[in-house]
Amino acid sequence: MTKDPIEETLAKYNRGLIMVFTGDGKGKTTAALGQALRALGHGKKVLVIQFMKYGEVLCAEQCLPNLTFKLCGLDSFVMRGSPAKVDMDLAQAGFRLAKEAIQSGQYDMVILDEINVAVDFGLIGIEEVLAMLKEKPEKVDVILTGRYAHPEIVALADTVSEVREVKHHYSQGIKERAGIEF
Amino acid sequence: MTKDPIEETLAKYNRGLIMVFTGDGKGKTTAALGQALRALGHGKKVLVIQFMKYGEVLCAEQCLPNLTFKLCGLDSFVMRGSPAKVDMDLAQAGFRLAKEAIQSGQYDMVILDEINVAVDFGLIGIEEVLAMLKEKPEKVDVILTGRYAHPEIVALADTVSEVREVKHHYSQGIKERAGIEF
Repeated sequence: MTKDPIEETLAKYNRGLIMVFTGDGKGKTTAALGQALRALGHGKKVLVIQFMKYGEVLCAEQCLPNLTFKLCGLDSFVMRGSPAKVDMDLAQAGFRLAKEAIQSGQYDMVILDEINVAVDFGLIGIEEVLAMLKEKPEKVDVILTGRYAHPEIVALADTVSEVREVKHHYSQGIKERAGIEF
Repeated sequence: MTKDPIEETLAKYNRGLIMVFTGDGKGKTTAALGQALRALGHGKKVLVIQFMKYGEVLCAEQCLPNLTFKLCGLDSFVMRGSPAKVDMDLAQAGFRLAKEAIQSGQYDMVILDEINVAVDFGLIGIEEVLAMLKEKPEKVDVILTGRYAHPEIVALADTVSEVREVKHHYSQGIKERAGIEF
């Protein structure tokens, strides 16, 4: 039986998107989390994998059964250029989880938070990330956040926003705060 | 009794923030919603008032008892320069609600979504908005989103991010979709 051309056409335009939030300003991770909230609002299942991060707690997860959070970082600074073995191993473990989750069909949206930085820092290879994006099931939305988005990821993405810092409360001596930064 | 100088100092740095998400890229409203999700995760109460909007449903609200959503727009286009009376009245009603909510102490975070556009379109006066921000209780976080953020709002804010469009899936002929745009 041939495929229904109307359904085929709709599927093409309803395909899952690859979105990138990059730049030096505040709002990249939160833009992804806001996308998660919208998707959850429509009954979708969302997985968030946070690379190089330990801080985000997001207690709201308890109220949102379709939201799953995975942290694959330590509460210590990752050195650009010479990351510790544990940082590499954790990022690679997170990346394996990401690939499996995207292929599994269990999630409508997978958010790879700070993966751009993990690539820039050499924790994950750019070729691996591009392959993952090219092989993703058509329906899955994938969101990649973090500064220094690789040009080949930008080229492949459907939507890319650069969040530019105009000003930040850090420069007024205000430190990170629960409910604002995590 | 004089105030505890340690507590006074902490209060100064723990003060509620004024944050602005502006620019032409995708991610302004979602950045604000992500901030809401973080705040909710720490037991805070959040009110979102959406100006000039009708579309956002955010069914997730049902799972998040501390999140309140108010829409004060119609499902029709607002004309810049010559808005309909109903658009003016709805924006003004939303703004009165915003002022009351900020002053009430009922909410830890109040998000004024698309208010920058409402100001730019002449639906709400800039002086009114500045007065509201200057008179806000110290603890309340206020987030203003939308293109064309007024320079005086930018000057007053603690944190301002410009979300710049690098590319958008609309330009590939993909239309808005539940779970992505609302």
